[in-house]
Amino acid sequence: MTHQAILEFSTRGRGTLDITGEVARVVAQAGVGAGLAHVFVQHTSCSLMITENADPDVRRDLETVLARLAPDGDPAYRHDAEGPDDMSAHVRSMLTSTGLNVPVGGGRLLLGTWQGIYLWEHRTGAHRRSVVVTVLGA
Amino acid sequence: MTHQAILEFSTRGRGTLDITGEVARVVAQAGVGAGLAHVFVQHTSCSLMITENADPDVRRDLETVLARLAPDGDPAYRHDAEGPDDMSAHVRSMLTSTGLNVPVGGGRLLLGTWQGIYLWEHRTGAHRRSVVVTVLGA
Amino acid sequence: MTHQAILEFSTRGRGTLDITGEVARVVAQAGVGAGLAHVFVQHTSCSLMITENADPDVRRDLETVLARLAPDGDPAYRHDAEGPDDMSAHVRSMLTSTGLNVPVGGGRLLLGTWQGIYLWEHRTGAHRRSVVVTVLGA
Repeated sequence: MTHQAILEFSTRGRGTLDITGEVARVVAQAGVGAGLAHVFVQHTSCSLMITENADPDVRRDLETVLARLAPDGDPAYRHDAEGPDDMSAHVRSMLTSTGLNVPVGGGRLLLGTWQGIYLWEHRTGAHRRSVVVTVLGA
Repeated sequence: MTHQAILEFSTRGRGTLDITGEVARVVAQAGVGAGLAHVFVQHTSCSLMITENADPDVRRDLETVLARLAPDGDPAYRHDAEGPDDMSAHVRSMLTSTGLNVPVGGGRLLLGTWQGIYLWEHRTGAHRRSVVVTVLGA
Repeated sequence: MTHQAILEFSTRGRGTLDITGEVARVVAQAGVGAGLAHVFVQHTSCSLMITENADPDVRRDLETVLARLAPDGDPAYRHDAEGPDDMSAHVRSMLTSTGLNVPVGGGRLLLGTWQGIYLWEHRTGAHRRSVVVTVLGA
């Protein structure tokens, strides 16, 4: 069985958006008991991440680390057509994930207790983002 | 066809554990000729990695690099509820993988000669870790 | 339905090779309307990446960032059997992806307008690389 949905999200600029509930809803509609849910962003300047859903400081600290590894306006960058956060967003995308899979069991996402699925906007401005969710299984 | 198993591993603290054999065993039980094996950790402070299985110094060097990119007790971290290796473990999880897929062909994992699948514990203390393996295909 | 193909590529040493067309061809042959295309390198010193396909400076800048995070001949490395780019290639592989999934819809890859699939050679010398493409769905 295969079920696919394209979700649209509006981000408010750099930061994480919890999309666990939206992905879970697609899985519930799929009618798949056991299999995989694949989540994919159709963009190269935002990404997806599974991380701790309890303390928001975790995501704040992850942002701090990425800002260090991929600083805005790095003089080494040649690509800066859309401003100082353009190339840093591509670097952040490279170091994280464009797509991820979550196992499905008993008709629902088999996430651990502390795992949430986040859409991570890497551009400083607000953007509209398309996320393709594909559920495969039996 | 879909086959799913949840494996439990006891880690001895920070470091890698070769789980290739355990994943291969689930694939053998699945009765899938061609498809995918998905491996997933239900945690946000350990991860999965495919890397060289020959020289253990490779994994030692990868550990050295992660310690540099995600140092324990970094003064920039706000989240330190469980000690100096708490937030660094989440950073290491972000920079590596919560889940991975390996192709299945001829009923077995299509890994290259030098590829092994490793469970990577990022906390300094021993932990019990759940790994969900899902095999899809025909 | 499951379709699998093993593609062979010759790299010219460190750098990216656009393999979007080759992966799309396997998807077209698969006869899968909706599902997933999984792409996997059977090696630990090259990787796969989805990034911007328009300005080649993006890939050049990503190379610059990786050279900073994973320098050749780092004195901290113990593993250097095949030269100064041996261990750095494994680090680059760890920080990027051994495999990736792209959703399939309407019988084709559901990539965003600016997304391309790249094989990323991390060794400085030319290599022959095997890429397994698996298409699952209905």
